[in-house]
Amino acid sequence: MATGFGIEILARDGLARRGRLSTPHGAADTPTFMPVATFGAVRGISAAELAEAGAQILLSNTYHLHERPGEETVAALGGLHGFTGWSGPWLTDSGGFQVTSLADRARIDEDGVTFASPLDGARRTLTPESAIRIQEALGSDIAMVLDECIPIAADGAGRTDTRAMERAMQRTLRWAERSQKARQSRSQAVFAIVQGGASEQLRHQSAEATAQLDFDGYAHGGLGLGESREERRAAVATANGSLPEDRPRYLMGLGRPIDLLDGVSAGIDLFDCVVPTRNGRHGLVFTSEGTLSLRNARFARDDRPIDPACRCPACRHHSRGYLRHLIKTGEALGSRFTALHNLTYYLNLLRRARNAIESGCFQALHREIEEISERRL
Amino acid sequence: MATGFGIEILARDGLARRGRLSTPHGAADTPTFMPVATFGAVRGISAAELAEAGAQILLSNTYHLHERPGEETVAALGGLHGFTGWSGPWLTDSGGFQVTSLADRARIDEDGVTFASPLDGARRTLTPESAIRIQEALGSDIAMVLDECIPIAADGAGRTDTRAMERAMQRTLRWAERSQKARQSRSQAVFAIVQGGASEQLRHQSAEATAQLDFDGYAHGGLGLGESREERRAAVATANGSLPEDRPRYLMGLGRPIDLLDGVSAGIDLFDCVVPTRNGRHGLVFTSEGTLSLRNARFARDDRPIDPACRCPACRHHSRGYLRHLIKTGEALGSRFTALHNLTYYLNLLRRARNAIESGCFQALHREIEEISERRL
Repeated sequence: MATGFGIEILARDGLARRGRLSTPHGAADTPTFMPVATFGAVRGISAAELAEAGAQILLSNTYHLHERPGEETVAALGGLHGFTGWSGPWLTDSGGFQVTSLADRARIDEDGVTFASPLDGARRTLTPESAIRIQEALGSDIAMVLDECIPIAADGAGRTDTRAMERAMQRTLRWAERSQKARQSRSQAVFAIVQGGASEQLRHQSAEATAQLDFDGYAHGGLGLGESREERRAAVATANGSLPEDRPRYLMGLGRPIDLLDGVSAGIDLFDCVVPTRNGRHGLVFTSEGTLSLRNARFARDDRPIDPACRCPACRHHSRGYLRHLIKTGEALGSRFTALHNLTYYLNLLRRARNAIESGCFQALHREIEEISERRL
Repeated sequence: MATGFGIEILARDGLARRGRLSTPHGAADTPTFMPVATFGAVRGISAAELAEAGAQILLSNTYHLHERPGEETVAALGGLHGFTGWSGPWLTDSGGFQVTSLADRARIDEDGVTFASPLDGARRTLTPESAIRIQEALGSDIAMVLDECIPIAADGAGRTDTRAMERAMQRTLRWAERSQKARQSRSQAVFAIVQGGASEQLRHQSAEATAQLDFDGYAHGGLGLGESREERRAAVATANGSLPEDRPRYLMGLGRPIDLLDGVSAGIDLFDCVVPTRNGRHGLVFTSEGTLSLRNARFARDDRPIDPACRCPACRHHSRGYLRHLIKTGEALGSRFTALHNLTYYLNLLRRARNAIESGCFQALHREIEEISERRL
């Protein structure tokens, strides 16, 4: 276990939990959302703006930083905290998801993953040991183990290859053991990853075995890749039943607002997703009454803010008509504002979830978001 | 003359003048630099950041706004001030430069310019009258007359076609008369444009005749298009000798820091240029000791700010190494920060010019910038 790291559960409402995650670089109120800073920056948004929007912990991508500028450069400039200027907690993924999703460019064997870099075509390898080593050099507060991640609808017909899924799950488990042994830093927490596709049985098996390895926290990987909402909820709930109560739980890469609240209701503490920034870039914005697409012509002369209930800089200062114009003309200020608005929405949604858990009315919030989740304004 | 508009000259040092430009939407200290907000926004930078950097007046492009979102939409959302959220003074160009530089796509005759829109191929026309009408709908504080603009090295051999240049200059003069008659707004100032290529004789002739038309201000057009620095200085100085002292003078579209100070030394009050934002996007940044290219490998682990003497957000919070990484990986935050840094440099340079004029030591500043203008760090 890493020193200076842990989660304290402050309140519960059903399985939902409201807690406080401590790291060597500060704390985060959970459940929380981690904005994605792939290369150490979030899509045109400054660290000060992220903090103002309510972000308390950021996520960066090991694989991308390994390629550019390289972990030695990040380390030379003070690790992720010094390099980027975000001095709060950082989580880094292991690169497994990016690398194994390179599909035909990647060869996976027991040792690790060998692949041709999309950047320069050079042959690179990533092993459980090197993934830990790179993340230690990056200096993140939370590192992730290398995992093998198979899309649930991998066979092209939308069916799951259960055999392949079980093999990947077992290999992820062996890689987790190797990761645990490879750790040298005492201050960096490491999370292991539960796999098993949409199979409740495999998820249960994976969670049981992974929990035995005594990691600082646990993540659910390989979801949001083809399974239904119900399958996902069942997979997470089943696995959570086998994970220790006193460790943080992280649902990787998901998703829409309703996916986050589904996760919270099953006891998830941490989330990340590119949906708010990517949707923002395309003019798709979240509001308290549903989503709206700013590219729609009827917003051209709309002088209202995206969401009158929102206090982000875009909503305080600009109309839908102006933001639509910026998105349509590809002006960088447009996607900066819409991405910041969406991040504010996500961070605020999880703040509301924390408050709702404290006051025992999380279900009401969950239903409210379910009702507007498919509504297009 | 427009009401609520004028320039007061507060100090002089040689031909250089330090003044205060009044408009219906506030004042600007001159000489000053106008950041270019082509579509009503400056390359990922917010209005609040521009104000903090010292901007007092912005420039927007009539032709671009006419195409998208259209002047009626801008008018419906409160004109440029309400639409963009920049409530200070706005200057709009006439679209003449953009349209006549479409070259083979444009046909110019006495009535105006007919061209195929690069956006959708549709046939559009711009006349002196419609350029004024569009700018009145946009609601800028300063409008520009439509002019015919011929590159100085137009014949492909670097020589000037003096006959064509004289014809364009004479037509620009007739168009200025028509623009003057087309004005309906009492609160919008209109500037006429001196043309004449690199010929001192034509510049003198153009300035003499244009000054007779009694505009709110005067601009030097068609420069920075192939002439030498000395030719440009002579052209501006000659024309300024024929322009009234009590009207603002604007050098259009120029340029490097030394070009601005050359202009100031000849009595120019207003400047605009895309150099700071465009160079910033490419990682070329200005400092108090010369320019540097952040793409250069030797900045990869440089933990110093771009310019220790600068107080912009990039220099306060980030290292050359981090900014280089953002530029190299195409992260939007990189060009946002470098563009804001360069704009801060330009705005600060003109603030220094104003102070130097007030204290009678403008020449020393001019020499200082001349010395570092070719220096690459």
